[in-house]
Amino acid sequence: MPNSSAIKSQTIADLGEFGLIRRIKSLLPDDVAGVVLSIGDDAAAVRPTPGKLLLSTCDIQVQDRHFRLDHTTAYELGRRCAAINLSDIAAMGGEPRHALISLALPQDTPVAWVDGLYHGMLEEFARYDTGIIGGNLSSANNGIVIDVTLTGEVEEGHMLTRGGARSGDVLLVTGDFGASLLGRLALEAGLDRNQADIARCVNAHLAPTPRVHEGLAIGERQQATAMIDVSDGLAGDLGHICQASGVGARIVASRLPIADATKETARRLGLDPLG
Amino acid sequence: MPNSSAIKSQTIADLGEFGLIRRIKSLLPDDVAGVVLSIGDDAAAVRPTPGKLLLSTCDIQVQDRHFRLDHTTAYELGRRCAAINLSDIAAMGGEPRHALISLALPQDTPVAWVDGLYHGMLEEFARYDTGIIGGNLSSANNGIVIDVTLTGEVEEGHMLTRGGARSGDVLLVTGDFGASLLGRLALEAGLDRNQADIARCVNAHLAPTPRVHEGLAIGERQQATAMIDVSDGLAGDLGHICQASGVGARIVASRLPIADATKETARRLGLDPLG
Repeated sequence: MPNSSAIKSQTIADLGEFGLIRRIKSLLPDDVAGVVLSIGDDAAAVRPTPGKLLLSTCDIQVQDRHFRLDHTTAYELGRRCAAINLSDIAAMGGEPRHALISLALPQDTPVAWVDGLYHGMLEEFARYDTGIIGGNLSSANNGIVIDVTLTGEVEEGHMLTRGGARSGDVLLVTGDFGASLLGRLALEAGLDRNQADIARCVNAHLAPTPRVHEGLAIGERQQATAMIDVSDGLAGDLGHICQASGVGARIVASRLPIADATKETARRLGLDPLG
Repeated sequence: MPNSSAIKSQTIADLGEFGLIRRIKSLLPDDVAGVVLSIGDDAAAVRPTPGKLLLSTCDIQVQDRHFRLDHTTAYELGRRCAAINLSDIAAMGGEPRHALISLALPQDTPVAWVDGLYHGMLEEFARYDTGIIGGNLSSANNGIVIDVTLTGEVEEGHMLTRGGARSGDVLLVTGDFGASLLGRLALEAGLDRNQADIARCVNAHLAPTPRVHEGLAIGERQQATAMIDVSDGLAGDLGHICQASGVGARIVASRLPIADATKETARRLGLDPLG
């Protein structure tokens, strides 16, 4: 296969901006629900669901701030970029709908890397019936920047904000704490990713699970008074709820859900899992 | 006023992420039409207009690719970032609604610069009853990145795409050609910005006028078969219409609207205004 390595090493400079847009367009399924006009015009157009509120969120990921190319594959990074936005819509009790992807890429970025990024995003979005409908491409001088904007929909009475918590409420979480942070620290410390406990933490960092089904179920049944996506850590994000709701909170450290794999990874790093 | 220079030189590192978010929030008016939930939660929420399509577009601007800090003030850059997105919604015949702003900023960015950027964006958006409802902040290693996502609304029968042009159609433009490009080249060549002809071109580059009212009027009356925002130059963008519509086009060079100031600036740069 004499062409195989030539294709692998093709860069986005070889394709040009419009060649890259055509390639990205070819990766997208053309049957996304609600889409009237997808990539390729001045704006995308979709049909909103009558009576629902429109949610929107965005998250900008900067190379060597939020990700390192020697720690993550393009596919993993794509999944992560999709997941962190899905998580924000989930935290409102919303149903994710459509995404726009803005990319700033150095000219020597391999086309295969861009393919991997889109495969990761498309796969993660597809789990929640969400499609990519547009975006913008730019060259970059220094490092990759990925900004994903995601819309969602929610019935007004099902939306949960940070501001509804009341005195006497109990705190509930959908996962466990610390795995993502320790996964990042394990990568930075160069620990062995194949060790099972470390692998679990690394995976929590590189490919977090957005709690879309949980958020929808809680919103529909109004089983919570307030809700938030944990991304700054328990103390930081609980602080946001307390501030927006005008309440305080007491955490019993021994009741915190911290997985054994997280404790073991903390031990290997010489850290206190509660620190 | 001993504190004046201290305030001027305050950087975003001094404020911290949440301090900067609070400051940006304080700059925003709190009476934007249709907004249920603005900055400060996991996502923003708005009430769509029943029966209309939702348009969305984004545009990423990278320092030293799309703008240079020695050529533009933060205020001018803010206006430009708003205008180029407004122009994309206008090109669909749409009415702009709400914007999300993603920023990656070096830690030594002056707070006054961020203030200026938001003042420029808010002023340009306010001309078209558009509000900023959310966004995301990140630190940057190298240079500023600004990604604006803008939504709009349009009645389905009023939307104009790139794909409707038919043989026999006449080409119409709302402005004149070449001023923005020559403005950029004049800045790069260090020409005197105070000279009137050059100033006109520089202004066309730094603070372009989005044709929102024109786009809406043309869409409502269905006075065109296809429409596009000119950003890659006449040949490039006409090419997009021809490709999407399956037609060709003939341009009579002598009939092209090129302003005298553009011709004069081209002469000063030793360029052919049609080149």
